[in-house]
Amino acid sequence: MIFAATILTLYPEMFPGPLGTSLAGRALGEGRWSCEPVQIRDYTTDKHRSVDDTPAGGGAGMVLRADVLAAALDAQAPGRPVLAMTPRGKPLTQARVRDLAAGPGVTILCGRFEGFDERLFEGRDIEQVSIGDYILSGGEMGALVLLDACIRLLPGVMGAASSGDDESFESGLLEYPQYTRPPEWEGRMIPQVLRSGDHARIAAWRKAQAETDTRLRRPDLWERHEGARVGPPSGAQRTRKTT
Amino acid sequence: MIFAATILTLYPEMFPGPLGTSLAGRALGEGRWSCEPVQIRDYTTDKHRSVDDTPAGGGAGMVLRADVLAAALDAQAPGRPVLAMTPRGKPLTQARVRDLAAGPGVTILCGRFEGFDERLFEGRDIEQVSIGDYILSGGEMGALVLLDACIRLLPGVMGAASSGDDESFESGLLEYPQYTRPPEWEGRMIPQVLRSGDHARIAAWRKAQAETDTRLRRPDLWERHEGARVGPPSGAQRTRKTT
Repeated sequence: MIFAATILTLYPEMFPGPLGTSLAGRALGEGRWSCEPVQIRDYTTDKHRSVDDTPAGGGAGMVLRADVLAAALDAQAPGRPVLAMTPRGKPLTQARVRDLAAGPGVTILCGRFEGFDERLFEGRDIEQVSIGDYILSGGEMGALVLLDACIRLLPGVMGAASSGDDESFESGLLEYPQYTRPPEWEGRMIPQVLRSGDHARIAAWRKAQAETDTRLRRPDLWERHEGARVGPPSGAQRTRKTT
Repeated sequence: MIFAATILTLYPEMFPGPLGTSLAGRALGEGRWSCEPVQIRDYTTDKHRSVDDTPAGGGAGMVLRADVLAAALDAQAPGRPVLAMTPRGKPLTQARVRDLAAGPGVTILCGRFEGFDERLFEGRDIEQVSIGDYILSGGEMGALVLLDACIRLLPGVMGAASSGDDESFESGLLEYPQYTRPPEWEGRMIPQVLRSGDHARIAAWRKAQAETDTRLRRPDLWERHEGARVGPPSGAQRTRKTT
């Protein structure tokens, strides 16, 4: 089965774009995934081919019309999760990426301007997804990120280049720091333990480093990791575990 | 002053890529920002032109060499923040995007494989940045996201298309839901208040919606927002505010 990506956008020329090079580009050439950008404007019915209009209640910018987006969406193949890239969405996680990559593909709606008419999400089964707490010029960049994250997990794409298991977030922790040749650089040595050949010590050192770095750099991840490890917290702690 | 972006990468052909179209592409054409991809491989000194080597201590994948990356970095114009895209980095926020966009530009290091030799970050002043808690095939996609977020904020880029002030994260909240024509779609009406013409009521409704949606969808953002609003918390609450 091939992972089928359909992207509803006002800028179909942005796809596959960077996904046409490197790992994802080779996988596309090998038929491991398909990339079908769809021009939303083709589903307009008025003579001006308008996809957007001014916000009800006033305000700057333009809002994408629910009727046009729904028509574009309804014309796509069913049976795949439909995602809309929006800063109002649920933050994307590696766990969700894994689920999506194991499925038949995705249909992605790319917002622009001030976003989508909210009724679209009431009238259709759409998962609202955010790739991070910042604002982009449109959902296209988010769609590229989401697809890149999925594609590298498809069977045969990474090969032996990376197992993926030790990577950041896979265990709920950041990945441990890495080192490579030369053994000394600008007076800085590769940590001795990594040159010891003692696999058990190396594994223990890496685990400790991953835990320390996560605790110091990402207290939010660390809290979640600890919460998952020790079981449900009690009392005042409980409210902290909602994310 | 023009916002100068230099991207150190193994895939210079990925730039400007999607940033050559739409809003960012027009701004590039107008000279509001510059895009200089630099091939890291040009800074190797061995006959094989190796940029990476196997991880010290064993494990899958390859690690980017500190000496090669430092040589590539040292050859770039000084005076701009240097960022490395890595899942071990600090999560990108809209506040950091605003700061970067107000500055002279950025130099961005794009990782691949198992990431960078950690000594690079000890030997050079580099800000490690993550665009989200998922794994990409390389830092290039992260660099595109970071640049897109910055470029739309450069003077003259958005124009009147969007004020930016009401958007998600700018006030520490998600943006309120938007609606536009038609007034009725599949039996669903635009909320009456938005058709009232009463600007004060509309503003109050939008604020309430933004608060409700943030509380329900993003308890983490809501907690931070409330913490900032009511001042420093006391007692057991304090540990929750570390993010």
